[in-house]
Amino acid sequence: MKPIWAYLRKHPLSILLLAFPLAFFARVGGWGSGWVFVFSAVGVIPMAGYIGEATEVLAELTGPKIGGLLNATLGNAAELIITLVAIRAGLLELVKASITGSILGNLLLVLGTAMVLGGVKNGVQHFDKKQASSHATLLTLAVLALVIPSVFSSSIGPINSQGVEELSLGVAVVMIVLYGLGLLYSLKQPSNPVTYPAVEHKTRGSTIWKAIMMLAAATLGVVILSEWLVGSVEAVVANTGLSEFFLGIILIPIVGNVAEHLVAVQVAIKNKMELSFEIAMSSSLQIALFVAPLLVFISLLMGNPLTLVFDSFELLALVGAVLTAVLVSIDGESNWLEGSALLGVYLILGIGFFLLPG
Amino acid sequence: MKPIWAYLRKHPLSILLLAFPLAFFARVGGWGSGWVFVFSAVGVIPMAGYIGEATEVLAELTGPKIGGLLNATLGNAAELIITLVAIRAGLLELVKASITGSILGNLLLVLGTAMVLGGVKNGVQHFDKKQASSHATLLTLAVLALVIPSVFSSSIGPINSQGVEELSLGVAVVMIVLYGLGLLYSLKQPSNPVTYPAVEHKTRGSTIWKAIMMLAAATLGVVILSEWLVGSVEAVVANTGLSEFFLGIILIPIVGNVAEHLVAVQVAIKNKMELSFEIAMSSSLQIALFVAPLLVFISLLMGNPLTLVFDSFELLALVGAVLTAVLVSIDGESNWLEGSALLGVYLILGIGFFLLPG
Amino acid sequence: MKPIWAYLRKHPLSILLLAFPLAFFARVGGWGSGWVFVFSAVGVIPMAGYIGEATEVLAELTGPKIGGLLNATLGNAAELIITLVAIRAGLLELVKASITGSILGNLLLVLGTAMVLGGVKNGVQHFDKKQASSHATLLTLAVLALVIPSVFSSSIGPINSQGVEELSLGVAVVMIVLYGLGLLYSLKQPSNPVTYPAVEHKTRGSTIWKAIMMLAAATLGVVILSEWLVGSVEAVVANTGLSEFFLGIILIPIVGNVAEHLVAVQVAIKNKMELSFEIAMSSSLQIALFVAPLLVFISLLMGNPLTLVFDSFELLALVGAVLTAVLVSIDGESNWLEGSALLGVYLILGIGFFLLPG
Repeated sequence: MKPIWAYLRKHPLSILLLAFPLAFFARVGGWGSGWVFVFSAVGVIPMAGYIGEATEVLAELTGPKIGGLLNATLGNAAELIITLVAIRAGLLELVKASITGSILGNLLLVLGTAMVLGGVKNGVQHFDKKQASSHATLLTLAVLALVIPSVFSSSIGPINSQGVEELSLGVAVVMIVLYGLGLLYSLKQPSNPVTYPAVEHKTRGSTIWKAIMMLAAATLGVVILSEWLVGSVEAVVANTGLSEFFLGIILIPIVGNVAEHLVAVQVAIKNKMELSFEIAMSSSLQIALFVAPLLVFISLLMGNPLTLVFDSFELLALVGAVLTAVLVSIDGESNWLEGSALLGVYLILGIGFFLLPG
Repeated sequence: MKPIWAYLRKHPLSILLLAFPLAFFARVGGWGSGWVFVFSAVGVIPMAGYIGEATEVLAELTGPKIGGLLNATLGNAAELIITLVAIRAGLLELVKASITGSILGNLLLVLGTAMVLGGVKNGVQHFDKKQASSHATLLTLAVLALVIPSVFSSSIGPINSQGVEELSLGVAVVMIVLYGLGLLYSLKQPSNPVTYPAVEHKTRGSTIWKAIMMLAAATLGVVILSEWLVGSVEAVVANTGLSEFFLGIILIPIVGNVAEHLVAVQVAIKNKMELSFEIAMSSSLQIALFVAPLLVFISLLMGNPLTLVFDSFELLALVGAVLTAVLVSIDGESNWLEGSALLGVYLILGIGFFLLPG
Repeated sequence: MKPIWAYLRKHPLSILLLAFPLAFFARVGGWGSGWVFVFSAVGVIPMAGYIGEATEVLAELTGPKIGGLLNATLGNAAELIITLVAIRAGLLELVKASITGSILGNLLLVLGTAMVLGGVKNGVQHFDKKQASSHATLLTLAVLALVIPSVFSSSIGPINSQGVEELSLGVAVVMIVLYGLGLLYSLKQPSNPVTYPAVEHKTRGSTIWKAIMMLAAATLGVVILSEWLVGSVEAVVANTGLSEFFLGIILIPIVGNVAEHLVAVQVAIKNKMELSFEIAMSSSLQIALFVAPLLVFISLLMGNPLTLVFDSFELLALVGAVLTAVLVSIDGESNWLEGSALLGVYLILGIGFFLLPG
């Protein structure tokens, strides 16, 4: 038992792996969809952590160029898997809600918590102003790229008409190209501080094979848990009165990103606000400018085409979150009051989505 | 007669106290609701000034901590009394219009006039960039806290349904907490320049009792005048064709804040833009993040629950005003062109609200 | 033939003058409205260039004061003529679309292209931060001055009711006054770099008469071509399925401004981003705060009153364009990524307007 305890002390989230068998028993034992939902959701947390860890190791071994690409594609892998499973199940509204929720979670919850805890411990914290300005520009583009097709589509035709589909595809191409240009720009910067010591070399010495095995196993785990999670959503909505919106916007994104979120907050407490800011911003941009348009293409191939037509509440939430985050970060400084404001906006949105009928 | 003339030369606004008996005679003499409205409104101006003066004296005598709290609660006392009387009379739309109007008045009319006159006299004027950034963050939060429940509530239920009431209460709690955190942050700043020499020690030597008496008398006066003012609103709307919107958004907020407004403009002319900016911003934030949510709670106790569901015109006006004020102030500098732009936005909104049918 | 070749090498756009006779033959020969539209549009390009050139010469000869006024009134002459012809023909939606499109074109297409090409060639480019801040303030005012009457008018009355007309006239007065104040402010700046060496002294030695003749001939040319262009619009819309929106927002503004656009991009490549930024911003502001309100007055005299009631798609496009342009420029720096973001927003809007039904 001793090595297990030592391991757990080092990787406390691993204890949440127990949720995997519990979710299994909840399903076969007929404990009710609520338990299936909760255990599946909790089980995703450590798995997402392992995917992140394995990606880090591979990124370190393959050098910065391919490593950056790996991070870009696998960074939100758990998220991507859950949404793909939801698309196959035809839960397109849940998918859009969870895209929205991931962006909100990163910009408001994660950045807010990081700024509050980091600011209380370290006073005013600083990060690169030019990087903040690039992020602000791309975030504004991203939010416009989600708002414009949503607003235009109402006059173009019904949500799955050819015109709306073409609009989504066209906008998706522009978004992915801009995301690529953003990565290119960031790589070309002279002293680019975007090194993610997310696992802080805990895994040094792991071989490439160990990492690939870990990646494969954790991915498989997330796929299975996502099936269970998504399968239980409709019953949960029916039984608890919680709206699909609330599950998609608040609960699912938190689950898919807990590991990453913890890292962002920890480094802020250690007064590395630069890195914390980078994690939250990159993750938001990745979801908005890469995952969202990618899902437009993949969903088309899967026969359940997802269009970039978001609900007006989601759009308001996105615009509000981006405006606040841009305003807070544009001066390259943060303090606990700015963090509190971000959390305040998150709370207000959370109350709103909670009260929205299903 | 000599000492009265000397007093009037020092306190020219005191002459407006004559409006009090005129308002009384207008009511009993049946001069028509228009005269009652005008004289009651004008009578509030010097009373609000006396409340402000008494608050200053008490704040000076009680030290900065309690003084700050006194300023925070009594700073918009006249405003608060008018709105409470309007809530009791069931004129909830008038209340929301006057909340909106107070914020617009401070951000556009007062700040605009201060920047124009200050800029023409003194050229480019400066104020603290970090303070401007904190204010910008809280203002953005405030506007989101008013926009989000307004937009969400349409899908939650009718304006006085339980869901909308819960949303308003929840958001109000978040707003007051954030306002408190903002005060705390501002108090903890090393060299906080937020000292309001609004009365410029004219009252030095006044005893605490004189101040309390003045406060009590002026408050009573505002209560009486507010009753007459609010009581005449419906007849004025019916007779003049002016909309309740226009009265609430443009006229009432000007009346409740004239004394404060004059101070902000005077100090800008004396090249203390820092203080002028602080007065206009603090007052806006106080109304948005403290008075508005407080009214949600008080109105509930009074049995006429006010919800944070604003009209789309009010929301557009608030968003526009905050955007412009943030943009103008974020660089810590002002000039007469920026002031003119603020006044321009105020004028455009004023024309719009004037033409809106009642 | 030799001097003609030499002239064409120096003024390559002059070859497009051939479009004038082609447009004529297309009309009389019955080639179809598509060809009339294309040739008339292409023919406007060199004419607009000549008007700009003549204005430069006159501005140089009359000194900076009157010259500035000339530039302000004639700078968008081609644009103004096309819109006046469209107003007389009753195509008011086309007029508003082309006002919107000119602003979008300057802020997104021209500034974006200039920042991309300038940034790729010269790295990070700089321009005056204070000037950028003034422009940002006036642009925000301009966009609010277009959004507010559009939103308010729906509750004031139908689009040509007296109330909406009064609102448009009132707002138009505020806009023109602000534009005048903006010019005054810019003239009073100590070292104002707003010298437009657009024609780079190619015309030195031209006499004032030559310039006036050129101005008269080019203006006449634009008037004739505008008649043909506007006359063909409805048939083009009916035959091609392109919406009046798309023609007005994307095609017509490009045509009216090609010459100016080329100059802005060329100077950015020569690392004079300051001038490039100034051209794009001044032109946007001129259209938004001067041409648009001027058209409100002129159209009233012409008996076809234009109101400032824009479509919600146009408003979204304007708000998005101004937000992005302000964010990109507020730090006084530009790079190719920021330019790409501007072009990205333009592309997304272009796809949206293209797919919008006529």
